Amino acid sequence: MRRLHDLETPVVLVDLGVLDRNIARMAESARSRSVRLRPHAKTHKVLEIGRRQVEAGAAGLSVAKTSEAEVFAEAGFDDLFVAYPVVGADKARRLLALAERLRRLAVGVDSVEGAATLAGVFREANRVLDVMLKVDVGLQRVGVLPERARETAGRLADLPGLRLRGIFTHAGQGYHEERPEGVTAVARHEGSTMAAVADELRRAGIAVEEVSVGSTPTARAAMAQPGVTECRPGNYVYHDGSQVALGTCAREDCALTVLATVVSVPAPDRAVVDAGSKTLSSDPLRPRPGGYGQIDGRRSRIQRLSEEHGVIDVEGGDTFRVGERVRILPNHACVVSNLHDRLFGVRDEAVEAEWRVDARGRVF
Amino acid sequence: MRRLHDLETPVVLVDLGVLDRNIARMAESARSRSVRLRPHAKTHKVLEIGRRQVEAGAAGLSVAKTSEAEVFAEAGFDDLFVAYPVVGADKARRLLALAERLRRLAVGVDSVEGAATLAGVFREANRVLDVMLKVDVGLQRVGVLPERARETAGRLADLPGLRLRGIFTHAGQGYHEERPEGVTAVARHEGSTMAAVADELRRAGIAVEEVSVGSTPTARAAMAQPGVTECRPGNYVYHDGSQVALGTCAREDCALTVLATVVSVPAPDRAVVDAGSKTLSSDPLRPRPGGYGQIDGRRSRIQRLSEEHGVIDVEGGDTFRVGERVRILPNHACVVSNLHDRLFGVRDEAVEAEWRVDARGRVF
Repeated sequence: MRRLHDLETPVVLVDLGVLDRNIARMAESARSRSVRLRPHAKTHKVLEIGRRQVEAGAAGLSVAKTSEAEVFAEAGFDDLFVAYPVVGADKARRLLALAERLRRLAVGVDSVEGAATLAGVFREANRVLDVMLKVDVGLQRVGVLPERARETAGRLADLPGLRLRGIFTHAGQGYHEERPEGVTAVARHEGSTMAAVADELRRAGIAVEEVSVGSTPTARAAMAQPGVTECRPGNYVYHDGSQVALGTCAREDCALTVLATVVSVPAPDRAVVDAGSKTLSSDPLRPRPGGYGQIDGRRSRIQRLSEEHGVIDVEGGDTFRVGERVRILPNHACVVSNLHDRLFGVRDEAVEAEWRVDARGRVF
Repeated sequence: MRRLHDLETPVVLVDLGVLDRNIARMAESARSRSVRLRPHAKTHKVLEIGRRQVEAGAAGLSVAKTSEAEVFAEAGFDDLFVAYPVVGADKARRLLALAERLRRLAVGVDSVEGAATLAGVFREANRVLDVMLKVDVGLQRVGVLPERARETAGRLADLPGLRLRGIFTHAGQGYHEERPEGVTAVARHEGSTMAAVADELRRAGIAVEEVSVGSTPTARAAMAQPGVTECRPGNYVYHDGSQVALGTCAREDCALTVLATVVSVPAPDRAVVDAGSKTLSSDPLRPRPGGYGQIDGRRSRIQRLSEEHGVIDVEGGDTFRVGERVRILPNHACVVSNLHDRLFGVRDEAVEAEWRVDARGRVF
């Protein structure tokens, strides 16, 4: 069996013990709340990890893009939700092909214009597409405001070719909260707002089967809100430096790291590793900026990145030598996974698995 | 022939007319200065673009990583420089395999420790590896300081298994200069410092065949410095928002854009496109931050990114509608190219080529 020192750096490692524990814990959280878990596969884009999530009890998977859904459908996943406002006739035709092969498919919508195109393609094929209305509970990205949901839902429910399955949101604003109590408050607002919107729609005679929330920091508290039926966290399988900074988890709950080599120590206060923005991404640490990666067992962090260099400001008596290998906890695991063609599953020093990032680059 | 409207979004477009003009102009700049051009292929990672650079007169290519060199060597490129301090016995063995097949190969070094490992592997195989000593002319990334170059070069020249071909630098600090005069001053310092280091080494009896500089903003002024023999710009084939902001080029010299679709207009002051950090990267605009992408024909910019969403702050009377397609000039073309498996070569509305990003993800 290969060992860590057999791998060329930089390389992405996934600690298999931590991965499976993260998957099991979130599955148990959902089960204990009687909430359906539909993990977001955009984090990993790996078929094998999706399979482990389903085996642990996930009802199906969420994906961000139609092309991701195609990869998972091809591999036999049969219940997918494209949690994104899908727009355009070309994508509608691809969704139609997906609907033919999947047991269950739903896609996000947040405008009548966008939904009308989907409806037209499905109606013409005498098919019905399940849609979920995106509601904005404070992120200010996509989605209708809660006070506009009833009007939009009513118009969607009238479109032949579509069936409104429910409503969904993503309280990504939790990533900007500097204290764990702030994240919890966002999560409670997320769950309770969605439950209230669902009640309002039902009072207006609009069926709402699914009330879906999700984001790793807010998942557990949002699932606890009465009326929530589904949760879609993604990052929890890996966790990362931002989740630690947010208080979502501890360092030992982080499954994904980057193994890198020190290639230069040009000054006493500077060391450089072979992992730059093409390995770690330029995503900032959240909720507050704080470099581009924490180095296991050291106080020093990567403070500057170029494409193939990570520059460490050497601090606190740390020393680095040329040729030494270090493990880096990245700020944002989801974008790291998407930069690499393959990941290595490890347990201590043993390399037990090599996985293709099957849906890598599937952004269309 | 396919047209633009046949492509699924988001997708990376390369304007073929602009690409070929950029390649020709830089080749002419180098020719007129009698400087060897060795373009950095990390920008595009596309075999066909490398071929066009060589056909236009490039002496060979630069790459950042051993794995990139392997891709270009496999395709028949026979003169490569790995412009990076390559460290470790595993990579040394791969370089040995490359040296067997290439007409010319050189790699960067900036420490005797790193070089000694390479030397050991080549000496044992009775081969000699050309190395270039990296000199830091102000970026404070890797490389020896000019005043330390003689000592390090002397020790490198004594290592059996290696031949010191010359010295190289990258004045990336030019990307932080807010005025074009500042960039020019960096370039002059780059070229003149390197020429002075070369003279000092020669006076000490150390042969210096190559004095190599490079970076797109500083390329033309650095090439003009007496004593410079080689230049390694990379980004110039595409250019990008940062090059426009730095004054290196105009918008019409930018070959790479991202075609995206407006998927949501949830508020009068906000529109969202289907291109986020997995399409555009999170790299900031340089020299000053300024959003994550300029939209052709509009004043509004993408001001926030999540993985699959680009959020436009709508300004100056701009309007956007759901389903509309827009072309985005990214901040940093090199990282955009590396996110995608393929690029489409276009001329006006015609799609003339589809290229694999052959060395995408080759960071090791």
